[in-house]
Amino acid sequence: MKERLSMTGEKAYEQLCKKYGEITTLRNVSWGLHWDQDVMMPTMGLKNRARQLEMLSGLEHEMLVVDEIGDLLSICEDEWGEQIGSLGGEAKVVNVREIRREYDLARKLPGDLVKAQTSASSLARGAWGEAKKDRDFKGFSGHLEKLLGILREKADCLSEGKVVAEKWDALADLYEPGCQAREVEAVFRPLRERLVDLVGRIAEKGYEPKDVVNGVEVGFDAQMSFVRKIAEKIGFDFEGGRLDTSAHPFCSGYGYGDVRMTTHVTGDRLGGTLSSVMHESGHGMYTQGALEKHAGMPMGNYVSLGIHESQSRMWENQVGRSETFWKWCAGEMRHEFGELYEGLNARQAYEGMNGVKRSLIRTRADEVTYNLHVMVRFELEVAMMRGDLEVADLPGAWDEKYKDYLGLDVPDVGVGCLQDIHWSLGAIGYFPTYTLGNLYSAQFYEAAKRALGDIEGGFEQGEFVGLLGWLQTNIHEQGMRYRAGDLCEEVTGEKLGADALMRHLEAKFGDIYGL
Amino acid sequence: MKERLSMTGEKAYEQLCKKYGEITTLRNVSWGLHWDQDVMMPTMGLKNRARQLEMLSGLEHEMLVVDEIGDLLSICEDEWGEQIGSLGGEAKVVNVREIRREYDLARKLPGDLVKAQTSASSLARGAWGEAKKDRDFKGFSGHLEKLLGILREKADCLSEGKVVAEKWDALADLYEPGCQAREVEAVFRPLRERLVDLVGRIAEKGYEPKDVVNGVEVGFDAQMSFVRKIAEKIGFDFEGGRLDTSAHPFCSGYGYGDVRMTTHVTGDRLGGTLSSVMHESGHGMYTQGALEKHAGMPMGNYVSLGIHESQSRMWENQVGRSETFWKWCAGEMRHEFGELYEGLNARQAYEGMNGVKRSLIRTRADEVTYNLHVMVRFELEVAMMRGDLEVADLPGAWDEKYKDYLGLDVPDVGVGCLQDIHWSLGAIGYFPTYTLGNLYSAQFYEAAKRALGDIEGGFEQGEFVGLLGWLQTNIHEQGMRYRAGDLCEEVTGEKLGADALMRHLEAKFGDIYGL
Repeated sequence: MKERLSMTGEKAYEQLCKKYGEITTLRNVSWGLHWDQDVMMPTMGLKNRARQLEMLSGLEHEMLVVDEIGDLLSICEDEWGEQIGSLGGEAKVVNVREIRREYDLARKLPGDLVKAQTSASSLARGAWGEAKKDRDFKGFSGHLEKLLGILREKADCLSEGKVVAEKWDALADLYEPGCQAREVEAVFRPLRERLVDLVGRIAEKGYEPKDVVNGVEVGFDAQMSFVRKIAEKIGFDFEGGRLDTSAHPFCSGYGYGDVRMTTHVTGDRLGGTLSSVMHESGHGMYTQGALEKHAGMPMGNYVSLGIHESQSRMWENQVGRSETFWKWCAGEMRHEFGELYEGLNARQAYEGMNGVKRSLIRTRADEVTYNLHVMVRFELEVAMMRGDLEVADLPGAWDEKYKDYLGLDVPDVGVGCLQDIHWSLGAIGYFPTYTLGNLYSAQFYEAAKRALGDIEGGFEQGEFVGLLGWLQTNIHEQGMRYRAGDLCEEVTGEKLGADALMRHLEAKFGDIYGL
Repeated sequence: MKERLSMTGEKAYEQLCKKYGEITTLRNVSWGLHWDQDVMMPTMGLKNRARQLEMLSGLEHEMLVVDEIGDLLSICEDEWGEQIGSLGGEAKVVNVREIRREYDLARKLPGDLVKAQTSASSLARGAWGEAKKDRDFKGFSGHLEKLLGILREKADCLSEGKVVAEKWDALADLYEPGCQAREVEAVFRPLRERLVDLVGRIAEKGYEPKDVVNGVEVGFDAQMSFVRKIAEKIGFDFEGGRLDTSAHPFCSGYGYGDVRMTTHVTGDRLGGTLSSVMHESGHGMYTQGALEKHAGMPMGNYVSLGIHESQSRMWENQVGRSETFWKWCAGEMRHEFGELYEGLNARQAYEGMNGVKRSLIRTRADEVTYNLHVMVRFELEVAMMRGDLEVADLPGAWDEKYKDYLGLDVPDVGVGCLQDIHWSLGAIGYFPTYTLGNLYSAQFYEAAKRALGDIEGGFEQGEFVGLLGWLQTNIHEQGMRYRAGDLCEEVTGEKLGADALMRHLEAKFGDIYGL
């Protein structure tokens, strides 16, 4: 310790990077093993894999919470003083700030509480599956109550020594650093009103574009081959990543130069596969956009789940569901698939990929209604954390909101408040990151167009490098330099708001539905 | 330490198993990552993966060499006394004995020497590749000399406190525990003479069976689908394993229930693919045959590389190149591939899969000449370790032996003494395990037939479960209970010798070539 205290900041920083690099190396191995489990692993390997993952996460935690890391951080902080607290700034300052944040969070959580959550959510996850199948909320409600109790305690631990407005904020902070319920509400409320209104105006038109992209039996191999080409074309680097299949699409990886994304293929749903691959490619390109010199450090990491989602949504929606994209993509499909898509018309494909319909299931929702599904969950989880809503009253409150925002009656909890797995995993604070992603995406996209001019003309020719380059410079290469909200202001010149997303939606759906 | 010394043997053993289980958990992750690197990883991931593997092997080593493991071992040894030293015996005794062996070996090697070997062989590997390409031994000889120097030092460290007849033995012990050059020579010498004689008699006949299995353009997907069926049929469990492709076939895995094997497919070489899959399935079934209760412990591990190879060779050669197997397999191929193999005749296929021809390249050699290739390498590496052969004289000595044993002139070192990568990796003592595998295989196979009666009649019907069950009981489930030689005596009633293999070869090739 003595020796350490006499260290210079540079020397301490060097050691800190080495130690933290080892932690992220183990973390990357775990991420990779998760990918392997969902994509490659034979069924009998499950127990063995669980042991490996448990051990790696234990090692990772042990290596993070040692006093030595705290000492090294203190030396750096003493030397670089006030810079550390501020956002932006040079790489070493960002790295120290973010390692400090992680270190403090990890030290604040008692091992018993972590184990209690793991065990409670493991039981809750099983009970959730059963209850959803049986359409019986009572089989899950006790588990959710217990989990919420643990999460309240966790929120208290995490907020120790910090000013946190409410418990939900402390939990959401793990997915979206700095996120606050009040601020999210301030953006979501007007957005919700404008979306409900837009959905109403669309519904009134009674127009249902035909889904001409899906419904054609293309087969597995042909779909995979086509979507790989599209992913490569928009900029996903297959020298540094793979695309495979899994039950649910996701994007993960083993670390620098090794992104693993997946999709799920149904033989006659090429449009669905394509959207999911555009989405996951967005995540993947964000990861690939980090600079090698920052690999394993916070400066080579992502800002928040909301910002990650902004990248996936931009390629899925702003690009992949735009008319200009389809002017190019329809031609690619005619060329690739011959008679299967012989008469495919770009306008029809574009409209077909953009059908809006009120529905009960979030994961199948369109670009407009999707955010309403998210808001229902956000509002209810905040209410539960605040103690304004009892778990027993969750189904009723859920159904009421679906009636209010989407005009739908929920027949049972299986397609109601039990449809998503998140709460059973204890993931409170996660849902809003989906809609935050849509909001950031729209605002970033407008900024990119202001900076780059007519990028959409390029899309028509299958050129996407301009947009990707702008994202790399302004977002990917910035790592964790800024918090999500600050990055948004820095890049777009404005705080996060609902306007950009609404302009995007009004323009597109106004055009399609003749509003 | 005090607390530990007052521990009971049972308690110490329990803790030892926990600690050692963690070490093998990390080791299994490393094996899996190696598989991923060769089979799945995108090219850009190389540097990142190297960092992960280096870190995991460092952690694994650190966890093994701590004093605590030594203390726990001592308590068990004190309590169980003489049992520990003996072979055979109950699981806990075997586990303590083998963990002690591994612990002592790991503690004996100075970190500097390990690093020196890693760095020297990394350079040697690169130089080997260049020298092989340039067909210029001088580009490699300096590296080999340096490596041999390090290996001599390593042999001295490894033999410290043990009676080891010569340096080569200490190195071979890492692949084939207890293996001694003198003993290997005593088996190989008569085998060599009899093989040279057999090859001569075959050559005299001038008969060249036509290779009717290869040479048909079957394509990748059809080959993979067919060989997967065959692997499953002989007993490889796909619920606990996978088959993929890589540049060179191998068998590895992530641990219990998760075997990963690979093959290499050339569109018109179905026979080659099939043989390699039979071979790797043999390795894979050995791994799958370990008992779950011993997972992660020596009792759930394999005896030696020679014994591992005996399992792969048995399925590749004794089974997969037998006439009875082809009576079944030819029918399967006619059924699977329709007109591509319409007139496939079992006898012709069997003969075609068993062509014997003197050649320069080990990896392409047939079942008879293969062992002569191995012996050349074994004799030369022993001579070099003994100081009886200078590195500079290696090419000459190599060529002389190829002339003596195989009657061939070696045109250059690229197809001569530089053809294999092994020595450049510092793997002295590895080559003989290939032929040891063939010898054990033949001897085990005779024992199985004595115990089971007419198993070959079953092969004709595509029934292999009898042989596999016998291997499981007698070999796979025994883990590391015996050393290779003792296992052989235990299972076959005889010491390892050349007779069984020669009986097998004389019978088969006598029949095919009319000797």
